[in-house]
Amino acid sequence: MSYNIIEDGHISSPAGFRATGVSCGLKEIRARDLAIVYSQLPCRVGALFTTNLIVAAPIFFNQAILARNRDAIRAVVINAGHANAGTGQPGLATVVECAKIAADELEIPRDSVLMLSTGQIGVAPPLDRMREGIRRAASELDSNGGRRAALAILTSDTRPKERAFRVSLREGRTVTLAGMAKGTRMVSPHLATLLCVITTDAPIESRLLMRALDQSVNRSFGRLHIDGDMSPNDAVLVLANGAAGGPPIIDGSRELGVWQQALDALCHDLAQQVLRDAASGGKHILITVRGASNDAAASQVARAVARSTAVRHMCARNLPDWGGMLVAVGASGVDLRPDMLELRIGAVTVMDDGAPVRFDPTALVQALSGPEVELAIDLHTGAGTATVWTCTTGMEP
Amino acid sequence: MSYNIIEDGHISSPAGFRATGVSCGLKEIRARDLAIVYSQLPCRVGALFTTNLIVAAPIFFNQAILARNRDAIRAVVINAGHANAGTGQPGLATVVECAKIAADELEIPRDSVLMLSTGQIGVAPPLDRMREGIRRAASELDSNGGRRAALAILTSDTRPKERAFRVSLREGRTVTLAGMAKGTRMVSPHLATLLCVITTDAPIESRLLMRALDQSVNRSFGRLHIDGDMSPNDAVLVLANGAAGGPPIIDGSRELGVWQQALDALCHDLAQQVLRDAASGGKHILITVRGASNDAAASQVARAVARSTAVRHMCARNLPDWGGMLVAVGASGVDLRPDMLELRIGAVTVMDDGAPVRFDPTALVQALSGPEVELAIDLHTGAGTATVWTCTTGMEP
Repeated sequence: MSYNIIEDGHISSPAGFRATGVSCGLKEIRARDLAIVYSQLPCRVGALFTTNLIVAAPIFFNQAILARNRDAIRAVVINAGHANAGTGQPGLATVVECAKIAADELEIPRDSVLMLSTGQIGVAPPLDRMREGIRRAASELDSNGGRRAALAILTSDTRPKERAFRVSLREGRTVTLAGMAKGTRMVSPHLATLLCVITTDAPIESRLLMRALDQSVNRSFGRLHIDGDMSPNDAVLVLANGAAGGPPIIDGSRELGVWQQALDALCHDLAQQVLRDAASGGKHILITVRGASNDAAASQVARAVARSTAVRHMCARNLPDWGGMLVAVGASGVDLRPDMLELRIGAVTVMDDGAPVRFDPTALVQALSGPEVELAIDLHTGAGTATVWTCTTGMEP
Repeated sequence: MSYNIIEDGHISSPAGFRATGVSCGLKEIRARDLAIVYSQLPCRVGALFTTNLIVAAPIFFNQAILARNRDAIRAVVINAGHANAGTGQPGLATVVECAKIAADELEIPRDSVLMLSTGQIGVAPPLDRMREGIRRAASELDSNGGRRAALAILTSDTRPKERAFRVSLREGRTVTLAGMAKGTRMVSPHLATLLCVITTDAPIESRLLMRALDQSVNRSFGRLHIDGDMSPNDAVLVLANGAAGGPPIIDGSRELGVWQQALDALCHDLAQQVLRDAASGGKHILITVRGASNDAAASQVARAVARSTAVRHMCARNLPDWGGMLVAVGASGVDLRPDMLELRIGAVTVMDDGAPVRFDPTALVQALSGPEVELAIDLHTGAGTATVWTCTTGMEP
């Protein structure tokens, strides 16, 4: 393994980053609700935003900034309590004004600030509180302040989610990679927006950052399917400031491969922390689909199974009744050959060649009883595969 | 109104029909679990079956029968307890054998029997119990036995669902129309298959029956969205035996229009009985979508809203927080203009022209507090409309 967990690591563990989280009255309860992540050097940026057609004002703003500046971002301001989505023109004005305040307070260029929000929809964050929060946070930035930032971005989450790795790119060359996230099950009145900010002191250009992020998110956050909704605020950012020094990490290099591995592991780790928070003591359900005509079809089947109330009941209650899996696969909208279908729960095959397989009900109950249930579907019609994670929350045990 | 409810009416209220339900050990508890609906005269048939790609054995069987005989069906045998879906070749053999037994017992042609099943998936009904049940039911058929049949087809339903109308086609010409249904929320281990059998003594040819049924089901059962799954056993049948006499009801006639109206009302009534059972004391939620590019797009939006956990939380808990509606609309996969969007809860408009509307939170809480909540979405981009019913079951209040 070329990366190691940094004990008590956080978003400002990589060299040249500082962060903090303060309380400025945006949340209903008194708690930290505004975070800044700041870099002393300009950052290259990779970014992925929500695919919901309703896009929150800060996401619009970021898209405009990144269209002209992907190489010299200096700060990310994140508020919880108000999503600033569905807020129309006034919401956009608020985010533009807040970014200006942050740039002025931090004494950095106006187009070097990104903005993220999470919380209630339909309400723009009050400008006076945002101004006060940004000022206080800007004055309290600290290279040890990452934990405070990770706390400030939470809404209905029950715990902060952060992780930092020391990555050995090769003998004698080490960089740091860190991330913080928020996200849990969608619980009204807060929609469980997924936010993730990743920092690294490695020198990587934005095109490579973007490609690397795309791969890592597809294999981690992209596999979560909890309550099935995509918020207008969802965003994953990676910022690379190069403060670790050394020559740029270039395309096709062994260094890039190692760094990508570490990014994959970091995103997987944070996604599992989100899943654990969403499951809140319930079971994790891992759904794997193979043999679909392509990966998109496989993903459609996996998501249909994840969405099924009957499947989640089966897992929550240890019921040796796999009918719900079959129903979800058949209703997924994906073309399939019923006579080729194979279904497995843990190590127990319950259907093969489209016909039920005689199994030991006790073994099946056992396969369902652990903290993690694996459901495997093989359509046997192609090479498409997909993996999706969900959980039993919301089901009576 | 040209139709009236028949007090204590049931599936065998129309002339020439007989029915019953018996107990033959198919359900886990001792209860009626096998029904026969029989007609003394050959029936024209209209039929709609599941669109799930996993099709239960009896549905396969019916499709084969109806491909060669749509004009002389004499009986429908329905069992509860075993769905006979996902049962492969042995399941098909069972249903063929059971239909043969029924035809022989009832002394009717072998290709005049239709078969329906509901219950656990992956298990074919035991042939010996089916044989015993069919024999007993065949010997107990009764023109007053409809209620017993309506009871025998239930699984996790809490009450039988039936309705009968006397329909005045014109001065001096009256026919009878009746239906029974099963269906509720999908609760493991039973998948809430939707079954509906409709009988009438009117003389109508099968092509017109099919068209009429299609319209009525689209406006009733087709609008239910509860737990989001479609079972491999779903079926709606209408049987017309012509026993009321008189000339055939022809295409374009006023008689056909009146009969269609009554069929619409009957299906709506039975669908609302299913919804009431599914809601089990919770609220009904009516979702209407207007202004989509076409009806299919409108339906896609309505179903996305119905599926939203956040929306159902809002309704269950009377929370004046409409963000979940917006999120579901934006993530529905339907193309839309965010700046045209209009959202309404009861009489309270919460978003117009894509911007939030200031509203009285007390009025909104009131709009959410009744036994039925109406959510209206207008995309303002076309003429497509859709209506979907769901309920708050499964949400903690």
